[in-house]
Amino acid sequence: MNPMKLKATPMDTGVEFKETRLDNGLTVIAEVNPAARSVAVGYFVKTGSRDERPEESGVSHFLEHMLFKGTPTRDAIEINLEFDRMGAQSNAFTTEENTVYHGAVLPEFGPRLLELLTDMMRPALRQEDFDTEKQVILEEIALYADRPQFMAFDWARARYFRGHSLGNSVLGTAQSVGALTREQMADYHARRYSPANMVLALAGQLDWEATLEQVRVLTHPWRPVSAGREYAPFQPQPGEFRQPYPKATQSYLVHLAPGFAAQDERRYAASVLASILGAEGNSRLHWALVDSGLVESVNASHDENDGVGLFYIFAQTDPANEERVVEVLRRELERLEREGVRPEEVERAKNKIATGIVFAGETPMSRLFNLGLSYVYTGRYETLSEMARKYEALTVADVNALLEARPFSQGFLYRLVPPEADS
Amino acid sequence: MNPMKLKATPMDTGVEFKETRLDNGLTVIAEVNPAARSVAVGYFVKTGSRDERPEESGVSHFLEHMLFKGTPTRDAIEINLEFDRMGAQSNAFTTEENTVYHGAVLPEFGPRLLELLTDMMRPALRQEDFDTEKQVILEEIALYADRPQFMAFDWARARYFRGHSLGNSVLGTAQSVGALTREQMADYHARRYSPANMVLALAGQLDWEATLEQVRVLTHPWRPVSAGREYAPFQPQPGEFRQPYPKATQSYLVHLAPGFAAQDERRYAASVLASILGAEGNSRLHWALVDSGLVESVNASHDENDGVGLFYIFAQTDPANEERVVEVLRRELERLEREGVRPEEVERAKNKIATGIVFAGETPMSRLFNLGLSYVYTGRYETLSEMARKYEALTVADVNALLEARPFSQGFLYRLVPPEADS
Repeated sequence: MNPMKLKATPMDTGVEFKETRLDNGLTVIAEVNPAARSVAVGYFVKTGSRDERPEESGVSHFLEHMLFKGTPTRDAIEINLEFDRMGAQSNAFTTEENTVYHGAVLPEFGPRLLELLTDMMRPALRQEDFDTEKQVILEEIALYADRPQFMAFDWARARYFRGHSLGNSVLGTAQSVGALTREQMADYHARRYSPANMVLALAGQLDWEATLEQVRVLTHPWRPVSAGREYAPFQPQPGEFRQPYPKATQSYLVHLAPGFAAQDERRYAASVLASILGAEGNSRLHWALVDSGLVESVNASHDENDGVGLFYIFAQTDPANEERVVEVLRRELERLEREGVRPEEVERAKNKIATGIVFAGETPMSRLFNLGLSYVYTGRYETLSEMARKYEALTVADVNALLEARPFSQGFLYRLVPPEADS
Repeated sequence: MNPMKLKATPMDTGVEFKETRLDNGLTVIAEVNPAARSVAVGYFVKTGSRDERPEESGVSHFLEHMLFKGTPTRDAIEINLEFDRMGAQSNAFTTEENTVYHGAVLPEFGPRLLELLTDMMRPALRQEDFDTEKQVILEEIALYADRPQFMAFDWARARYFRGHSLGNSVLGTAQSVGALTREQMADYHARRYSPANMVLALAGQLDWEATLEQVRVLTHPWRPVSAGREYAPFQPQPGEFRQPYPKATQSYLVHLAPGFAAQDERRYAASVLASILGAEGNSRLHWALVDSGLVESVNASHDENDGVGLFYIFAQTDPANEERVVEVLRRELERLEREGVRPEEVERAKNKIATGIVFAGETPMSRLFNLGLSYVYTGRYETLSEMARKYEALTVADVNALLEARPFSQGFLYRLVPPEADS
């Protein structure tokens, strides 16, 4: 009895999807929206820490920085100025499995932004820039070591995925980055930034034919090399680990449990389940832990990776409450697996997620991420309406079906705690 | 010679502006956009720390929290659940002169969101909730005391605006909040949350006539009281103050200088000037301080208040570099006043700001802020196109005219530094 069903809002009116693969192997996709007031452009490179050899740990992220340092015809200042002249909103990020470069501008600057980003994909990697930037990366690594809230998740993943490349650190270590040479980076770039391993995505107001012609000319010299990814089998093992850390003043709890891959259609139901369990502001864990004053914050979400997925829960608490928080967390997870979810919980989570999808469709920049990542993982495009319909169709039974395998009972609990609390 | 002039992009196509004042004094305004996929609703209350008596310092911000704690017919949980059921993205904030409550939802939930926010404007202010929330606020005050980066700006304002209510702290102090009674808060609410002192703004997909009828019914019991604001004259005095602070590990420099009020048309040129001086990523201060490695970050902006404006510059630096940073900062400000700005700098800043305006027009939620705040300050509405045209028309002479009064030479420099650096 929920009166708030999603209307079939005409979310994709006038929007047209285009895709092609160039002779050099580069995939180009676009969601053309003539009513948009801007255009977003992004290169999605299917490479990240999971694709690194042990001796090159951290190279994906370091290389991401180097792409802003210069090309054969531009230095770092010229790249910075060119973004600035267009008034571009731009950035880049590196994860375990993707490196993404993106920007948004007024439609009239679209071709210039495309030219700049394309030029950056073939960086000069000058030795002097490499040496300077290495210091910046080493400082970043040192800085994060002071942030247990960040490291807790990284170290929990490393233990959960032990022996699997999805446990690799994005930042790398002071040792691995310190020892890295320019030649190793150039070799990694040559292997991983093959046009066949990249998707160029665009969203918003643009001329598809003109864009395609421009990309053909700009990337004409690019040569494809084969750039695979290893999909080692992964078998999660339940367990726990408690680590005292001098820089921790709070206790950080990370619970990881098997979920569903980016290619698995059950990922929609998994997002709803994670929302019911631990969405910030209102969820089972919110009421059990935040509202009761046991923790400052808690949240659960579902993380879809290439071939593997996981549920994760993060809680930060006063060390004095640590054991009580773990107890409540275990009780809630057990109750969830035993009793399943209720219809009104599913409806509420579906509304929340569907609204989020609409908000994420309001600007070309936010559409770009959906578009590019969905394509990298599944090789296909999903309209906003299709996504909304998939959530709309979910039932309580779909969500409860995920619980039959008792995923949370197979979870791994990682605790990063102040040394004092370890006595 | 800049080829990147703004096209007359049809930014406001299909958008219609509506406004009315109800008999109880409440102003209702809307930017109706039938093509939008969501609707944003906000109450803009023209009250903040500058409107507080000394003994009620912090009440505006504390009251903002209390509006989420309950109305005569809803408790805190019910308010939270109701936002959640709609999948609303909502929040609130308090500044020196405004308290704003806002949310965005799918169009079909618009009336429900409007009902909820309107109900919240008449809070129950239950004693038990008041006592509990007071502890939360006191913890927040203690928390901010650990964040010199935040306090530096607050304390710099207090000194710059000494004797003027714009120097009042939004958070208040542990003493003032600790001593505050429920009755004082109820009195403040009765004085300041008069419908005549509030603007209800909406943006996105909505039915204006139906909205208006709903608001009339919901706010029928509201009675206007006169709620003025004192506009004491303000005469900035140049000077500086250096304060050692045990919790500072870096040196924080805040430079404040006279600017232009929210009602002054020269504010557009002032934004361009601030961008040229200190926009993050690319500006005179960026190249002089960040690129040279002297500071971690620096930025300048122009802050428009009701009747008074100011330029502010914020830099964070290693204590060892403090004197050198101050020297470079003074040199750059002096050079700016002596030589003025260059045409290409003005063009670049205009492009950047114009692009920002377009991005801010892409979602109903971001339009809402522009719409509501512009109306609170000037009593009128400005379309995106009008704003873009005003920037487009700016010349080098307009920007240089602001420098004739040598505003930065009348600036006040506040330094918050580690105690060790004070020897």
